[in-house]
Amino acid sequence: MSTDPLVVFTPSGKRGRFPAGTPVLTAARRLGVDLDSVCGGRGICSKCQVAPAYGAFPKHGVTVAEDALSPWNAVEERYDSKRGLKPGRRLGCQAQILRDVVIDVPPESQVHRQVVRKSAAVRAIEMDPATRLHLVEVAEPDMHEPSGDFERLAAALEAQWGIAGVTCDLSLLARLQPALRKGGWQVTVAVHSPHRGAAPRVLEIWPGLHEGGLYGLAIDVGSTTIAAHLTDLDTGEVRASSGIMNPQIRFGEDLMSRVSYAMMNPGGEAEMTAAVREAIDTLATEIAAEAAIDPGLIVETVFVCNPVMHHLLLGIDPVELGQAPFALATSESLELEARDLGLGAINPRARAYVLPCIAGHVGADAAAVALSEEPWNSSDLALIVDVGTNAEILLGDTSRVLACSSPTGPAFEGAQISAGQRAAPGAIEAVRIDPETKEPRFRVIGCALWSDEEGFAEAVGPGGVTGICGSGIIEAVAELRMAGLMDASGLIGSAEQTGSPRCVPEGRTHAYLLHDATAEGGPRITVTQGDIRAIQLAKSALYAGARLLMDQRGVDRVDRVVLAGAFGAHISPLHAMVLGMIPDVPLDKVTSAGNAAGTGARIALLNRGARAEIERRVREIVKVETAIEPRFQEHFVAANAIPHATAAFPELARVAPLPRVAFNAGSGTEDEGGRRRRRRRA
Amino acid sequence: MSTDPLVVFTPSGKRGRFPAGTPVLTAARRLGVDLDSVCGGRGICSKCQVAPAYGAFPKHGVTVAEDALSPWNAVEERYDSKRGLKPGRRLGCQAQILRDVVIDVPPESQVHRQVVRKSAAVRAIEMDPATRLHLVEVAEPDMHEPSGDFERLAAALEAQWGIAGVTCDLSLLARLQPALRKGGWQVTVAVHSPHRGAAPRVLEIWPGLHEGGLYGLAIDVGSTTIAAHLTDLDTGEVRASSGIMNPQIRFGEDLMSRVSYAMMNPGGEAEMTAAVREAIDTLATEIAAEAAIDPGLIVETVFVCNPVMHHLLLGIDPVELGQAPFALATSESLELEARDLGLGAINPRARAYVLPCIAGHVGADAAAVALSEEPWNSSDLALIVDVGTNAEILLGDTSRVLACSSPTGPAFEGAQISAGQRAAPGAIEAVRIDPETKEPRFRVIGCALWSDEEGFAEAVGPGGVTGICGSGIIEAVAELRMAGLMDASGLIGSAEQTGSPRCVPEGRTHAYLLHDATAEGGPRITVTQGDIRAIQLAKSALYAGARLLMDQRGVDRVDRVVLAGAFGAHISPLHAMVLGMIPDVPLDKVTSAGNAAGTGARIALLNRGARAEIERRVREIVKVETAIEPRFQEHFVAANAIPHATAAFPELARVAPLPRVAFNAGSGTEDEGGRRRRRRRA
Repeated sequence: MSTDPLVVFTPSGKRGRFPAGTPVLTAARRLGVDLDSVCGGRGICSKCQVAPAYGAFPKHGVTVAEDALSPWNAVEERYDSKRGLKPGRRLGCQAQILRDVVIDVPPESQVHRQVVRKSAAVRAIEMDPATRLHLVEVAEPDMHEPSGDFERLAAALEAQWGIAGVTCDLSLLARLQPALRKGGWQVTVAVHSPHRGAAPRVLEIWPGLHEGGLYGLAIDVGSTTIAAHLTDLDTGEVRASSGIMNPQIRFGEDLMSRVSYAMMNPGGEAEMTAAVREAIDTLATEIAAEAAIDPGLIVETVFVCNPVMHHLLLGIDPVELGQAPFALATSESLELEARDLGLGAINPRARAYVLPCIAGHVGADAAAVALSEEPWNSSDLALIVDVGTNAEILLGDTSRVLACSSPTGPAFEGAQISAGQRAAPGAIEAVRIDPETKEPRFRVIGCALWSDEEGFAEAVGPGGVTGICGSGIIEAVAELRMAGLMDASGLIGSAEQTGSPRCVPEGRTHAYLLHDATAEGGPRITVTQGDIRAIQLAKSALYAGARLLMDQRGVDRVDRVVLAGAFGAHISPLHAMVLGMIPDVPLDKVTSAGNAAGTGARIALLNRGARAEIERRVREIVKVETAIEPRFQEHFVAANAIPHATAAFPELARVAPLPRVAFNAGSGTEDEGGRRRRRRRA
Repeated sequence: MSTDPLVVFTPSGKRGRFPAGTPVLTAARRLGVDLDSVCGGRGICSKCQVAPAYGAFPKHGVTVAEDALSPWNAVEERYDSKRGLKPGRRLGCQAQILRDVVIDVPPESQVHRQVVRKSAAVRAIEMDPATRLHLVEVAEPDMHEPSGDFERLAAALEAQWGIAGVTCDLSLLARLQPALRKGGWQVTVAVHSPHRGAAPRVLEIWPGLHEGGLYGLAIDVGSTTIAAHLTDLDTGEVRASSGIMNPQIRFGEDLMSRVSYAMMNPGGEAEMTAAVREAIDTLATEIAAEAAIDPGLIVETVFVCNPVMHHLLLGIDPVELGQAPFALATSESLELEARDLGLGAINPRARAYVLPCIAGHVGADAAAVALSEEPWNSSDLALIVDVGTNAEILLGDTSRVLACSSPTGPAFEGAQISAGQRAAPGAIEAVRIDPETKEPRFRVIGCALWSDEEGFAEAVGPGGVTGICGSGIIEAVAELRMAGLMDASGLIGSAEQTGSPRCVPEGRTHAYLLHDATAEGGPRITVTQGDIRAIQLAKSALYAGARLLMDQRGVDRVDRVVLAGAFGAHISPLHAMVLGMIPDVPLDKVTSAGNAAGTGARIALLNRGARAEIERRVREIVKVETAIEPRFQEHFVAANAIPHATAAFPELARVAPLPRVAFNAGSGTEDEGGRRRRRRRA
């Protein structure tokens, strides 16, 4: 009696012996090898493609003969002639194991394939979406054993795919019978299997094999913009990314003014809910059109947002979030029908998953940042800052993670700045001031040239320079400090004190003239003392929040800083540190995570386990409420100086020693510390 | 050391010793005594009222002293002064056990109290509704331990009522925060705990103690009428019963014409769905108004209906039910949102439970009849017939239950009858024909007098006699047979043959003149040969269906017959048996179950266990499809004679020997058996 042939799967290394004639897919399933199949082995979906390897494999102790697998059969011939199989590929459900063989499962044939993320610092996303396609053969009705078509579909899903106890929506039930008959009792169903609790449910049905794909939307509902990634639920590929303004801006620029609107205007919260839902629906329509995808194929949505947006999206009055104790109506994650959030453009049975909120001021967006950055897996102590109108701050490592939010206000987004504007073409986004000449140069959004480079005016175009955006004002203020035009207390010196005619009087203070286009009918852009005060308030709040977490953790330094948020991606680490926005760390330890909230939403969209994980992690995170911590105010005041009144910034001092200047009336040119020492002596 | 006092609860007989000072409610809960409480022992709901008994109870071995319970406390005083406690009653949560005591739990204080049904033959309904009220004290929000208000409500429900993992609808989430604050963190919630699978969910919330009750609707969606019972979910009391015409009638009188309408008219099924849903919504509004109840307090609905109505209610095209193999889209029970069935008038979060269908022709209405009549608990073999446009037939006992439906057509409802009309005032509902004089008398709906009694004309009123309804035509045909005016084949004799001038020629046949009001401008009501043929077709179908089940069961007699349906309640057992509608049984073994489908719906409304039971029983019932059984046709033909061509009706012969007459051209006055014998001899 001969031994059964041996099959070795790569890359998993799983191996086993099977009777000659066993299909590769069958062997893979028995061994728990991650080999995909939508059609369940009927030779039509091609998801189970494998690459047999021939020759000697001493590593596996196998030599694979040319006839190790059965010859191509009619099903493979037909598939190849119709759609083409890549060279060297076989259909795993058709090719039978005849002799010892090594079978490679290419990445695209793995169920739990990984999606590579841009940032190499973090793990890839493993594909495990809640909704998957399955082809089933449903038993025909039998008058002698009457049962419903749905009950026979459910039985087939259990028998053929091990998915027990499915439910379905009335709207799908109404479409079930024609689909079954049109497909000759063979249908593809999209089955949503939630990561916890509830029963799996059939979301969509197609006669025969559905090959049009399945999509999901990861949606970040920000106070200012709503951004969405349209993502392939099979490959994880982002097919389109798009954004739309949050129309709630007409009810109030920032969160608290929207809460006030709801308080002052009966029904105001409903108006804002309707506005944001309509915008999301529009965005869904537009993004599907952009990717040329049938919106009906969008069956999953994931939402991340700050607590006020969270409540307004859900149709809950945010009034409690405007006052202590900042009670959320609900803090845990939500599994909903997308249509209950007003999404009418996508599949009518699409699901919505809303990430949990961490606390009344630390929302599902912060949870998404955490899911993306995984501070709980960090071996060094990481400070993660999502900079926006509110800054959400996470501090932690494998031992413990803390979170708080800090009311930075909108200055970092260019609001409350005299020449401030949103990040849009024409806005100054980067500034440099020559420490010798005190002359500025800058770059604007939409133009690669610096303002002192040749052809700048033509490159900027007829719109010209229009204002200054968040990253621009941060750089401007930091450069003023580095050039000795502004002292540690934030005072701009006079032309006389600084020796620069760009320091112009403005009332009883001075401003720095960055750009003057009045001769051409354009704007005169200055950095005023008021602008600097606004930035100081914002950066003090940010630093104080971080410092509060460090206190709670019992440390006075962190190992690294991650700047998250679209804005975080544009902040120069050096300038941020000169301003004292973040604690002192080596400059190369300040990284940008890009749109981490959006990435977190995409992870939750593609991996059910990530949903369970963030729900668990959020419960474990230590929440710190800045509003009731007396030390917050103390930290805030001390952080007002640039970079800081008391904390040493040794790393900063190493790369950018700051001039010791002081422009206070009657003071000399000593630094802030000098003044304090003097006061103490007095 | 003295022994703890003994408490004995009646009627349960449960007993135990508890430390002096234990509240009666606490003792009851520990012993598993069925004592209600909504407020959880806060002395405000009064649901836990008990009646302590004093004196000697040799049966229990206890003598109860006057001071066995603690004196009235302030809570009881306040409750009594505000709302009044019945004499001898105490609040179980306030009265403490000090010495041995006997405590009676009155029926209204039992959670699982029983609702007595009118028919004494069947068990009472035990109260165990899916939705119950609970008063909870919710923890206030705490900035140091941030969590959502809903999560704290859920925790309170688990801690205070043992209800874990509740969910809630977005629409309720939006109302949660104001309710909690208005109630000072004490709220009453209506919690729906499904009988299987899904998580419990909060359907409604009220600040403080809600005392307005909670209601459900048991709805029987018939082809012709939709009937509803508005029922108190606490007491089981029917607060109002009402009906409305099924507006689908405009698309087709009977089921198959509605299926045809859907087949012939694209979108026709959607029109019919909209029509029936709108009517149900109207009915819900009307019935709540009739009972003077806030429709928002209606939180549960239960639906029973035949398969075509079932599909049209659910929004499913019934086309598959119009042709073999009569495949249902879904056969099992459904747990839905009532709003998904278009119910907008009641609580927006009200639930809908749709009973399972038995087969493509045997619907949720038949399941409800089974739930009401419980053939599986019958020690003798019961035939249960729900007479309508289709007859649903159940045959069974404790060993096995079989079911089929039979296409009787609408004749039993007065349709297809020359003078037929719906059961309404003015319709002849009972007929007697004197066997000697061959003269008729009758009674009409809305008038207690017989037509030969003095004052009949005045009592009937100006509307006069308008036609003949289902029960009237059955009695008329049976009476014709008993009076010797019609032979076993269904032929009416001529005036000459019968000696009655009321047998008038009509074409080539004869009719019997029941009532002639043409002189007063009224109708001339006859029973025509065509009418008799229609009744014969209907009764043959009914009998053949019953007979088929008897064949399957291997019997040729049953022990008892139950006539269900509103119409069944009006059929005289004697006349039904003369017609041969039902198999021969002793007349006292023919009973009416009244509106058993409605009763079954009410049982499912009030008792979760009944939902689980009917789901299980429906799977066990042996389904017989009349359309594919060749013997059905055979039985149908044989059942055409009145009462039957071949089956003996010995019980009928004992109480009402039928005259041997034959009016076939050329035949004598022999009975059907005689003629057959003669043919055989020929």
